[in-house]
Amino acid sequence: MRARPRAARGAVLATSLLAASLAAEADEGMWTFDNPPVAAVQQRYGVTLTPEWLSRLQKASVKLGASASFVSGQGLLLTNHHVALGCIERLSRAGKDLAGHGFVAPTRAAELRCPGETARVLQSTEDVSAAVQQAMATGSTDEQRNTLRKASIGEIEKRCEAAGQPGAGQLRCEVVALYSGSVHHLYRYKQWDDVRLVFAPEYQAAFYGGDPDNFVFPRYAFDFALMRAYENGHPATTPDHLKLASAPLAEGDVVFVAGHPGHTDRLQTLAQLKFQRDIELPLDLASARAQQALLQAYSARSPEAARQALDRLFGTENWLKAMRGEYAALSTPALMAAKQADEARFRAAYAARGLAGDPWADVEAATARHAAKVKELKAIGYGYKTLFSVAGDLVEQAYERRLPEGERLAKFRDAALPEIERRVLAEVPYYKDLEVARLAGLLAEARDLLGNEHAYVKATLAGATPQATAEQAVRASRLDELAVRRALLGGGVAAIEASDDPLIRLAREAYPLRRELARWREEKIDTPIEHAAERLGQARFAIYGRDLPPDATGTLRLSYGKVAGYDANGVATPWKTTVGGLVARADAFDGKAPFNLSPAVAKARSHIDPQVPLNLVTTADIIGGNSGSPLVNRRGEWVGLMFDSNLEALGGRYVYTDDKARSLAVHAQAILQALEKVYAAPQVARELRGTVARPHRR
Amino acid sequence: MRARPRAARGAVLATSLLAASLAAEADEGMWTFDNPPVAAVQQRYGVTLTPEWLSRLQKASVKLGASASFVSGQGLLLTNHHVALGCIERLSRAGKDLAGHGFVAPTRAAELRCPGETARVLQSTEDVSAAVQQAMATGSTDEQRNTLRKASIGEIEKRCEAAGQPGAGQLRCEVVALYSGSVHHLYRYKQWDDVRLVFAPEYQAAFYGGDPDNFVFPRYAFDFALMRAYENGHPATTPDHLKLASAPLAEGDVVFVAGHPGHTDRLQTLAQLKFQRDIELPLDLASARAQQALLQAYSARSPEAARQALDRLFGTENWLKAMRGEYAALSTPALMAAKQADEARFRAAYAARGLAGDPWADVEAATARHAAKVKELKAIGYGYKTLFSVAGDLVEQAYERRLPEGERLAKFRDAALPEIERRVLAEVPYYKDLEVARLAGLLAEARDLLGNEHAYVKATLAGATPQATAEQAVRASRLDELAVRRALLGGGVAAIEASDDPLIRLAREAYPLRRELARWREEKIDTPIEHAAERLGQARFAIYGRDLPPDATGTLRLSYGKVAGYDANGVATPWKTTVGGLVARADAFDGKAPFNLSPAVAKARSHIDPQVPLNLVTTADIIGGNSGSPLVNRRGEWVGLMFDSNLEALGGRYVYTDDKARSLAVHAQAILQALEKVYAAPQVARELRGTVARPHRR
Repeated sequence: MRARPRAARGAVLATSLLAASLAAEADEGMWTFDNPPVAAVQQRYGVTLTPEWLSRLQKASVKLGASASFVSGQGLLLTNHHVALGCIERLSRAGKDLAGHGFVAPTRAAELRCPGETARVLQSTEDVSAAVQQAMATGSTDEQRNTLRKASIGEIEKRCEAAGQPGAGQLRCEVVALYSGSVHHLYRYKQWDDVRLVFAPEYQAAFYGGDPDNFVFPRYAFDFALMRAYENGHPATTPDHLKLASAPLAEGDVVFVAGHPGHTDRLQTLAQLKFQRDIELPLDLASARAQQALLQAYSARSPEAARQALDRLFGTENWLKAMRGEYAALSTPALMAAKQADEARFRAAYAARGLAGDPWADVEAATARHAAKVKELKAIGYGYKTLFSVAGDLVEQAYERRLPEGERLAKFRDAALPEIERRVLAEVPYYKDLEVARLAGLLAEARDLLGNEHAYVKATLAGATPQATAEQAVRASRLDELAVRRALLGGGVAAIEASDDPLIRLAREAYPLRRELARWREEKIDTPIEHAAERLGQARFAIYGRDLPPDATGTLRLSYGKVAGYDANGVATPWKTTVGGLVARADAFDGKAPFNLSPAVAKARSHIDPQVPLNLVTTADIIGGNSGSPLVNRRGEWVGLMFDSNLEALGGRYVYTDDKARSLAVHAQAILQALEKVYAAPQVARELRGTVARPHRR
Repeated sequence: MRARPRAARGAVLATSLLAASLAAEADEGMWTFDNPPVAAVQQRYGVTLTPEWLSRLQKASVKLGASASFVSGQGLLLTNHHVALGCIERLSRAGKDLAGHGFVAPTRAAELRCPGETARVLQSTEDVSAAVQQAMATGSTDEQRNTLRKASIGEIEKRCEAAGQPGAGQLRCEVVALYSGSVHHLYRYKQWDDVRLVFAPEYQAAFYGGDPDNFVFPRYAFDFALMRAYENGHPATTPDHLKLASAPLAEGDVVFVAGHPGHTDRLQTLAQLKFQRDIELPLDLASARAQQALLQAYSARSPEAARQALDRLFGTENWLKAMRGEYAALSTPALMAAKQADEARFRAAYAARGLAGDPWADVEAATARHAAKVKELKAIGYGYKTLFSVAGDLVEQAYERRLPEGERLAKFRDAALPEIERRVLAEVPYYKDLEVARLAGLLAEARDLLGNEHAYVKATLAGATPQATAEQAVRASRLDELAVRRALLGGGVAAIEASDDPLIRLAREAYPLRRELARWREEKIDTPIEHAAERLGQARFAIYGRDLPPDATGTLRLSYGKVAGYDANGVATPWKTTVGGLVARADAFDGKAPFNLSPAVAKARSHIDPQVPLNLVTTADIIGGNSGSPLVNRRGEWVGLMFDSNLEALGGRYVYTDDKARSLAVHAQAILQALEKVYAAPQVARELRGTVARPHRR
């Protein structure tokens, strides 16, 4: 018996503020590719990140909803099943359940185009902070600065797209605000608008253990899917793709993740964290719980209803569980105490340098304003991916695009319009029963938050119940017909105002209030916070150096770390699970849902290799949006596919820790095993392996 | 996907004080067989515990170190490997490692007698409180009461043994103090002094996962061993034995445990709990850590050294981990707050009934006295199962047995002397290198606790180092020779005083101080606390009724509960593990120790049935001493073998909870699988199954 130290380890609270001093002690950071952690990686792991190595990884890393990567020269995309789930659901119909049963395209011709799906790869970035700030400098109020900033960004993006070389593929340009908006970079993407589904396992294999096992390790999920980018109707040629690793992965190995982490709040001030803890998260938790209950009730109606609501229920429960972890983290006295100590040190250093003003007070004032209107900001909306949100998109884009760019709401600037149009015109199946239930829930939530006397509630409900209002509006709406949506999109304000579609009518009633609130938010919350953040950011650079990653912004980042098991509250947790472990967990629960094996896995259990690694954990720093990111080794070969974090990592939104927090990946060997031994997709496995099938005979 | 409620459940703090009101809500209690929880079991599980059912289980339940049961009519005893480990180690020698390699007796003749081992079964109990209290009533001081109590108890035990019918087997009588000494029962046992080892798996299979997995679930331990009671050189005839269950066990099933839980402190006052938390446990933790370090260092010398120290290292780490859990529980504000609230309610009810005195204050005064001498009480001792403790036994029994029973230290009353003699005369291998290391550690600890100027330290060390003193005393001692021990035991005080054995000399020097301290403790701590406890106990009965189990006392108890998985900090934990899960855990750790498969299990992995249940969890209320207890179903058939609790249950010393706290059992099918498929012991399996081998040919 080997002796092990049993003393409890204190949580390592490594905040970004302390990154300079802790750089050699923690694998923290979602780094931009223009400021990669070369020195830290060299020091901690003895690996030199060359410009070539970085460029290769960047060019193979794909934004596809969340994240993905090219894994063959013919545009083959590897991502998570739960990232592809939206596409899978849009391709499914009653009696054709690609989520439940999985999907294998036996030939290229059988690959199915995902409605509305795009894939993009970051080609280059450019610091445009000076231009944006110069433009903003001429404004003297937050309102003016907001307008000038948006106009400037719109201008930069349009000029960029206009300069795109013909033949270089579709160019997309986007200005990204980093370090809480204190820095602006122009990101140039190559984009593919034709993305097709190649392979998906069964939902039960991909999301084994369901919501109870979500964010849990040890974990047993085949959470992967394969898609393909097409160009001019042919598979895209993608020489910049990742190759499958030839050497096996082992505990302690250094690993890298390239992906698109959505949102972290590590640079937020204490006032912002308290706002989240005391005001925003409790509201969002209540909202998510209500949506979960609504979707569970809907799913209970029939197997077909459950199929229709699957993606939404998954998304809601995933969001809910993540928020619970975040709320728990913010409710941990130690975390807030560490944040408070960090801020006190930063404030002292700021004062010591004689820097002017009190940006913390400005942020706090903005959060106080936010708190006063937070319920309206939450309540007055169109929901997420509903027919009503299509109506909202249609109404808003019609009115907004008439205005000069600086005057529009930020999300309607020119460069962003094609994405909105694509969303509206996607051939998505809408289920009216589900739409009724979801709209009724949305209206009821608004009423509960705002009260019956609020103008928005009066305008939308007009004295009726949420259920009756939703029933009437959804049943009579024809927005589920593509032609109707296309006509409204092309018809401008005239078509919108002429429409008697009840959902369009409802969105028209909501629009003025929505717009007023959104402008108010941009001017009274976002712009002042950005202005304060700019001063904080400059001070941070001056005090702590430039060797800090910005908070996540849904854009390409590089994380690094090592493959490492951990001690989970006294329980020794290995660095990986195996296929045999999956079978054993199902047996331990007597095959009860959600711990049952999927039919294909159950059928394969006798001939599948139980020792094949299934999932694994690393210290690499990721967060929601990183789903589908490739996990690569020191040679830049792919060894796995990120798909989750453990519960202990949910506080990672606010602070990176590495004692128990881990990011989860599907092991590459599990993906191959699934393709070759569980699902009859050897041709896909061959493409992944980069081998041509050679008949081998004696 | 099945929806599950995700809301965190509050911890159920069901203290014994509240048992009356919570009886229908929690499976709490280690009940005496004369006061079984008939009504609660009927109400919660619809099972009627008949006198016949209870009597059958009682007669098959065996005290054997910790616990065991008869599982065949030929005296076959089922217990844990870790309970049998002392015997296994005593039967091992260099080059004959029964712990490491396991042991199978191919025939009855090959079964190996365990030196010093006894097994006993409780035959009947009788309330002798009146006699003991009547005797004590004539005393007016704590000193007198202590003497009178011991004399009375000694008298009762002797009278009982003298009245034993010839031919009824060896009768042992013991007076047991229940409810903190407020009630005294006479327990009559049938005892077997010839216990032999029949079967033991490899240590690595029995204690899979080592210290890291100890008190952890999911768990994968074949923690069982088989022994046999002999009478007159023949296997004992044991018609009162448990039969193997024929029906499979399932989640939710009601189960029962009969065993010998050692010690709980649920009826202790707040002052006692604070004494444990602030004074006693920190000292014990430090001591256990030092012993662990010492034994680890010794084990690192060579594989043979590791073999020698195995049982002690296991015991020390087991104790240490349990204490850490207990300390953590006592350090939980919620637990202490609940205890405080309980005590406040009890005090109020006590006062409302106009009951005299303040027994809580008396207990608190006693704990304060205890605190003042706690270091001496810890430091001045002979250690646990060392050559020095043999010397201590020899010296103490010689001096003590000269005195009238009431004057002796409690553990040397007549009825207890045979056990001490058996311990001294057991043919146990002593390893002088290990003895040196352990005695040096013991002497160093005393010096560190008491300081160089303390009389005990001066007497034992005489200016030398602990290492030199231990070296000199152990090397020259001949107590490892049975004949020497026998001569000293038979020679009375004269032989002890004439001995120049250095360990005897050391023990002689320690004895007067030891005796003075022990007497002081009996008179100034134990007796006043018992006196207070008697008043508290009577009040408790009056206020809460008689339907309360006493704290555990190492005597036979009945627990009940159900087979139930649980939510471990958000991780869905099944009710069982499987043999396939064991293999998967080993694979997940790449076979690294202590997660490697034992050689026999590794060899069997291809033909062992992966779906066989291995370990399982129940809500039945157990604690240390229950190890080896049979787990039986509603029909009284054995379905498993208790061997541990999870970490969450370690606070069970103070309060029973059932939200995450679980007791762990080895599943009966795993035991059969091990005998039949891993170790070549089909004859033992047949005896367990109660089947005669029938050659089955076509």
